Formats: sequence, structure tokens, C-alpha cells
Amino acid sequence: MTPKTSQLLDKMRQGDKRALARLMTYVDNRHEELLEIMSAVSNSAGKAYRIGVTGPPGAGKSTLVDKIIANYRAQGKTVGVVAIDPSSPFSGGAVLGDRIRMQDHNADEGVFIRSLGSRGAHGGLSRATRDIVGLLDAFGYDVVIIETVGVGQTELDIMAVASTTLVVLVPESGDTIQTMKAGLMEIADVFVVNKADREGADKIFHELKSLTHMFAGREWEVPVLKAVAVKKEGIADIVTTIEAHHAHLKNAPKSSHERETFLKHQCLDIILSELGPRLEAVYLKDSDAQSFCRFLIDEEKNPYQVAAEVLGKVTLS
Amino acid sequence: MTPKTSQLLDKMRQGDKRALARLMTYVDNRHEELLEIMSAVSNSAGKAYRIGVTGPPGAGKSTLVDKIIANYRAQGKTVGVVAIDPSSPFSGGAVLGDRIRMQDHNADEGVFIRSLGSRGAHGGLSRATRDIVGLLDAFGYDVVIIETVGVGQTELDIMAVASTTLVVLVPESGDTIQTMKAGLMEIADVFVVNKADREGADKIFHELKSLTHMFAGREWEVPVLKAVAVKKEGIADIVTTIEAHHAHLKNAPKSSHERETFLKHQCLDIILSELGPRLEAVYLKDSDAQSFCRFLIDEEKNPYQVAAEVLGKVTLS
Repeated sequence: MTPKTSQLLDKMRQGDKRALARLMTYVDNRHEELLEIMSAVSNSAGKAYRIGVTGPPGAGKSTLVDKIIANYRAQGKTVGVVAIDPSSPFSGGAVLGDRIRMQDHNADEGVFIRSLGSRGAHGGLSRATRDIVGLLDAFGYDVVIIETVGVGQTELDIMAVASTTLVVLVPESGDTIQTMKAGLMEIADVFVVNKADREGADKIFHELKSLTHMFAGREWEVPVLKAVAVKKEGIADIVTTIEAHHAHLKNAPKSSHERETFLKHQCLDIILSELGPRLEAVYLKDSDAQSFCRFLIDEEKNPYQVAAEVLGKVTLS
Repeated sequence: MTPKTSQLLDKMRQGDKRALARLMTYVDNRHEELLEIMSAVSNSAGKAYRIGVTGPPGAGKSTLVDKIIANYRAQGKTVGVVAIDPSSPFSGGAVLGDRIRMQDHNADEGVFIRSLGSRGAHGGLSRATRDIVGLLDAFGYDVVIIETVGVGQTELDIMAVASTTLVVLVPESGDTIQTMKAGLMEIADVFVVNKADREGADKIFHELKSLTHMFAGREWEVPVLKAVAVKKEGIADIVTTIEAHHAHLKNAPKSSHERETFLKHQCLDIILSELGPRLEAVYLKDSDAQSFCRFLIDEEKNPYQVAAEVLGKVTLS
């Protein structure tokens, strides 16, 4: 590591927020020393409690996160937030109204909020999320919240970074529950029915209850909570339940097999996110006459053929 | 390629559906000859028109696909379908009611429907989708439809396989439109407001219209269509619009830069989906005492460190 980077890391560890922000741009730009940086950071991380918050658009996740931050702050805990902003998959996204609201906390020294525009390909988003969370953790935040939109297959990767994941639904989410069933159960440690003062809240609540009962017998029975985030209703209950899940995880640690699978998955995600850009730079550079690109462009060869040729150049020793 | 596999490919090309189904299980099991198979298949593909259908849970996508199939069949065209079933991210998912309905077409020789359970990591799903679509294309289907649930960042990867993508919304999708704006525009070639006989349909219709106007000036102005799929209303219009987009693509082909980016992305996706399992087998095998796994498990090293060590073993010649 260059002395400059090493110095930056030291500053960050000493609580310099500007150094933290600077390191975050290293993540954005895939700084060449990023792997080394994150490896160093990773060794001083692991103290923050990591909470995931996900759910469909319009579920009121940002407001909920806002109130959860306030609750932790009242307890004297510091909070880092990674908000994955889907408003544009390419440009990195405009600032949403909800996000602006959260920025109120930015006047608060004990809160740091970072938006992450979504990147297209090759696990870029899960890697970037993991890195940002690692930095917030190493900086010393007590709690790190990862907020993302969507209820899908792919949220899994991102949510794997969190220890406790809240799936936030609203009275209008009936179709989501019917369609996603097992998919939801795979992600959720806690269900929150937000906007619970609206018509249909009880119906959704009971649908989620039946869903969780279908999966009864697991060590942790997924609780279903009601909230009206805009009125701060149900927030204390949510935070208490997160702590209960935290305690549960401590008492019922993952089996060594689960742990191994988890770590391997993490490791492979990092390896592939590093390899993607390297492979591209070496074999698929536009400007290079030797690039395998020309096989693609001249339509002499299909992508599978070109992939096979590139793979032939990769040696695993 | 082994003679057996080569024979299977020949049979498939001659219209043997059992051979087609067998090759699809090769995709599921990541058959060791898969890259070779897909490369061969890819050369006889490219004739099918590829249509993506995506949208939030409960938007009625399967019913819509069902009616679109019927429309193409009435025109004498054959149709292959890949339905990405999110009901479970791990088990591959139960059969949904909607899916059963679609299975009616299975009595029809001109239709082939394949469900694809979602896989966790490392672009597995986009690779598998691409492979299955390639097989259906090579078999000779005139139209291939890719149906997936979700409106998110990650649908992008899957939808990149399609030439024309319909984003299906319903009167209840107001929040989705507000939250996802540019994200939706990045995916959609055509918007369909389904269940348009419900209250609020006009509101959504006009919101989508304003959204598409915000992006006016693009070569293709994204049309907004109304449909009531269960009543077969609006289907002919949708199919006509798909054909119009098809014609547009022919007249305004991608720039060579766009084409290059697209092919490179495809190629890299294939390379990484091959490398993931190979890296795992070589460096992260549980049972192997030499595996880098033990560094992870014994907690001597963090995943970034282990990733760096594995990367040190990978040579790009």
C-alpha cells in the first residue's frame, strides 16, 4: 500500500469523516489498491450491527429508516447508512425526496448517509455495498443500515451483507406476498407492515402471519410487526425486535457449514468483481488490435466462442 | 464435443423436443461441455424474435404472456417461453397457478414453456436465461418470450437478452413509477397498463405518458398501451407494437459502439459464469486441505485477503 493510502486509512480510523468520504470514492472508482484497502479495513471491522431494509417501491422504507436512525441516536448509538438508489441503473440516480429527508441527519455528527447508484453488471453492486458497509463499520459506527428497493431474487446478494433484514410491506402488497412466498421468507428476518393505519393492514398482517407459520419450526420464527413510520408508531418495537434477533444469532450461531458457505460466497463475489474489469482490460479492450473484441465485432465468432478462447488464456495455478 | 452430445444437438436441430429438453437439463446441471454446446447452438440461432415481459408481482404478466402466445399462434408462428420463477430463490420454486394455466399450451406442438428457478450468485440466472433462450432459438421457434418478476436494477441483466421489452404495470403501480422513473425507462421499450378496466387506470396511463415525454427525443418514443389480459383486450395492439419496435430496430440498428458494449458485456457474463464454479472447485473446495477455505474458516484471514491470494494464482496470459 502506498504511504498516502495508508495515511488516509489511519485518518479514517481516527474518526476523520473526510477521509471516510474519500475512501468511499475509491470504492466508486475501483481504486487500484481497493482490495488491499478493504482487506486492511476488514480487520478492524466487525463491530457494527448490520441491518438490511428492503421492500417494494412506495413501502415507506426511507421514512422507516429515518425513524430507526432517530431511535438509535436517542440511545446514544451512531449510525451509518448505505442507501441503494435505483432511480437510475446507469447514471447513479437523482436525489429522491425521501433521501433529502434523511439528509437532515447529516447535520448530526453521529450519522453518515451514503447513496449508491446501481451499477449494471458483474456483481458490482453487491461488492460496492459490501465495501461501503465495511468502511462504515471500520470507522466505528455502532449500527449500519443497508436500504434497497425491490423484492426479488437479486436483493439476496445485497441483503447477505446484513445480519438482520427487515422486509417492509404495505397494505397494497398482497400480490407481492402471494407471488414471492418462499422468496420473501428467504430474505426476511422480520416483516414490517408499514402504513398500518390504512385499510387492508389487518389482511396483510394475517397473510404474513400464515406465511411465517408455514415455515414454523425454524429456529427463528419471523415476527410480523405493524408500523406507521410517518407517525413514529411501532418504531421502538421494531428496534427491540432487531435486538432480539441479534441476541438470537449470538445464541444460535451459524453451523460451520453455513458459515463456510457464506464466507466462500463472499470471497467468490470479491474475486469475480476484481476479475471482471481485469479480464475486460486484458482481453476485451476496444482500442487494442489484439483484443478478442474484434472477433465479436466482425461477427466471425459468437460470444460463447470468444469466451472459450479467453478462458483458454486464463491459468489457475 | 463427444459424439453423443453432437448427436443430441443434431436431433434437437431436426425438431426433436425431447432432445431440446435434455439439452436444457445440461444448462441446469452446468454440463461440462456446455460452453461448446452453446457455441455450436449460437451459430444456428439468431432467427427468433426475443421479447421480454417484466413487471411487479401481481401485474398479470403470465396471463398477458398467455394471450400473446395465442395471438402469435393464430398467426401461425411458434413460440418458446422462459418463465423465471421467483417463488423460491433456492429450491427452484413451486409451480404457480398462472404457470399451470400457461401449460395449456403444452398440448400445442408449436409452444414450449420452460420455468427457470432462480439461482443465487454470480450471474447464474442471466447466463442460464441466455442459454435457454439460445436453445429455443436454435430449435427454430419464431418468437421467444422471457418472463420475469420484478422491477429493479437486476432485471436489466436478464432483459438484455430481449430485443423488445414490455414493462407491465397495473393501476396500483403508482409508487413504482414514482420511485423507479429512469430505471423503468432504461428497461422498457413498451409500457403496458394491464387490468386497465380497474379504477385508477387512466391516472397511471397519464403518469407513464408524462414519464415517456420526459425522455422524448430518443429515437424510439416508448408507447404506453392499455390492456385487460383476462378479457383478451389490447393484445392485438401489443403484438402490433412489438412488431413496430422490431421494425424500428432493423431501421435504426445499434451504433457499432453500442453493439460492441453489448457483445462485450455478454461475453464477460459468460466468462465469469464459467470462472465462478472453476475457481470454487480449484481454490475453495471444502474437503481439500490445501483449499483457501481453511484461511476463511479458521478466521485467520478475511475474505478480501483470501480473494487477493486466489487472484495471485490466476494468470492472464
